[in-house]
Amino acid sequence: MKLGSDVPMTRNDAPIVVLDSGLGGLTVVQALHARMPQERIVYFGDTARLPYGSKTPATVTHFVEQIIHYLEPFQPKHVVIACNTASALALESVRETFPDLSITGVVEPGARAAVDALRPGEEPVIGVIATEATVRSRAYVLAIEDLCPSARVITRATPLLVHVIEEGRELDDPLVRLCLQQYLAPILDRRPSALVLGCTHYPILRPLICELVGKQVSVIDSAAQCAQDVREHLAERGLLRDAGYDMLESIRPAGLPPIDAPAESWLQCYVTDDSPRFAMLASRFLGITVAPPEVVSPDELFANLTAQAL
Amino acid sequence: MKLGSDVPMTRNDAPIVVLDSGLGGLTVVQALHARMPQERIVYFGDTARLPYGSKTPATVTHFVEQIIHYLEPFQPKHVVIACNTASALALESVRETFPDLSITGVVEPGARAAVDALRPGEEPVIGVIATEATVRSRAYVLAIEDLCPSARVITRATPLLVHVIEEGRELDDPLVRLCLQQYLAPILDRRPSALVLGCTHYPILRPLICELVGKQVSVIDSAAQCAQDVREHLAERGLLRDAGYDMLESIRPAGLPPIDAPAESWLQCYVTDDSPRFAMLASRFLGITVAPPEVVSPDELFANLTAQAL
Repeated sequence: MKLGSDVPMTRNDAPIVVLDSGLGGLTVVQALHARMPQERIVYFGDTARLPYGSKTPATVTHFVEQIIHYLEPFQPKHVVIACNTASALALESVRETFPDLSITGVVEPGARAAVDALRPGEEPVIGVIATEATVRSRAYVLAIEDLCPSARVITRATPLLVHVIEEGRELDDPLVRLCLQQYLAPILDRRPSALVLGCTHYPILRPLICELVGKQVSVIDSAAQCAQDVREHLAERGLLRDAGYDMLESIRPAGLPPIDAPAESWLQCYVTDDSPRFAMLASRFLGITVAPPEVVSPDELFANLTAQAL
Repeated sequence: MKLGSDVPMTRNDAPIVVLDSGLGGLTVVQALHARMPQERIVYFGDTARLPYGSKTPATVTHFVEQIIHYLEPFQPKHVVIACNTASALALESVRETFPDLSITGVVEPGARAAVDALRPGEEPVIGVIATEATVRSRAYVLAIEDLCPSARVITRATPLLVHVIEEGRELDDPLVRLCLQQYLAPILDRRPSALVLGCTHYPILRPLICELVGKQVSVIDSAAQCAQDVREHLAERGLLRDAGYDMLESIRPAGLPPIDAPAESWLQCYVTDDSPRFAMLASRFLGITVAPPEVVSPDELFANLTAQAL
């Protein structure tokens, strides 16, 4: 498949690239689209090699670099690494590999939103639930301490949650409740002020998590902050697309379909394995029906990288 | 890394290759070693791309073919696809790709052991728990019906179990019990005579599964039957190694270390990602400490295949 033909006419028309180990990053796509409905988004989910959360930094970094190499012909105006594990393990290295690209992750925005949520006079105790690899990387601890050196950060690996969500379990399933109770108990013992949902899947469980932690704990979802940051970044550089579009849509005649249908008009999805879960999970994470994705095998990613190196 | 230097001197000295999406296939290694302690075993776990159970037949078949291509220089006397998903999705195609290799899986042995466990006069109802991909493939249904056309097969995808085990949860964890109860309930409603553990991870949960299903249900673990079949296959062809070895060991003087320590002498492990879980899971599945594995990246597998094709 040739991507070059899709190169945009002007810099503002260039898409935002969002990449993830699987489909959880679609929660970030939703947050971006809610704030910038006029932007084109290219989404890449590495479904043949997911999950990243149990794998090593070297392997995850390499996978992410292959994906960005593959998507370079889109000349994206911004790249979001929407996977917490990949942000934690690979962001720094990937920025060095692609110095001309503007790339952000989800860990720093999540850490900042958590610190912002601390109320004056409160003990600065912040809980973080995430994958094993994210916890092991200490990325959230470092990012939070950087912003608030007095913070005490309690991280907990919660590897089952991704699979509970991907299986399609509902919030009233007793297993979902038990699983969350077990994972959250040692964090709640330390009386945190905020809890960071350190994986893009977890916002699906947000209502139940909020119920279990109680009103005194701010539940932080990094997707919202990440999307806000990307909007500000693009606005500062005059890179937002067609700024009048929002207003135009707001005077759209009643009876026309909502602007996010069909999704094809603004969203293009790529996956490395054509999982039969795509339709179910995409609509669960994004809240709308998504057109079938293009499939790019891991071999194509590798061959593409090798061809560029020659 | 060069494998060719490891080519055995005689056909009987050639190793048995066991491959899996991850480390669950080590339960098959254990069953093989228990029956043939004199055999050399080469184990390959595709830890960078696991799990296979949520992926498509095309992707899984391609991964398995890459691995066998890579291990061909060992000139194995037998190859066991120790992953139920890979056996269900890829075995037939892989046999066509490698007509000179003797290759077996774990689905057919599991199906046969289940049919053998049926008692005369009983309703031939067999339950199967497995990954989503294995269930979708209907491989167990077809294999069981082939052996016993009157059998009624009830299959159930149980995707969380692998992750529950990989997280290291113990049998007395209430979440493990609840998870199994939920998955088994609709099968037990149909009053099965046998239950097949259709994933190499599940034998870890066997004591709790046996408790939950009750004594009237035979719990079938395909690893044992698979290992027995491999032994018979090699014996029939005169390919067992050093047949006197067993007897020799049985008269081993007391006080010497048991024959399976150190494991290095008979077992060589390869993985595609150097997971920090390896040591914990390997000892859990195999029951002994295993030397650190060699790491072969997915790129090396791809490059190897491409080089052979030129």
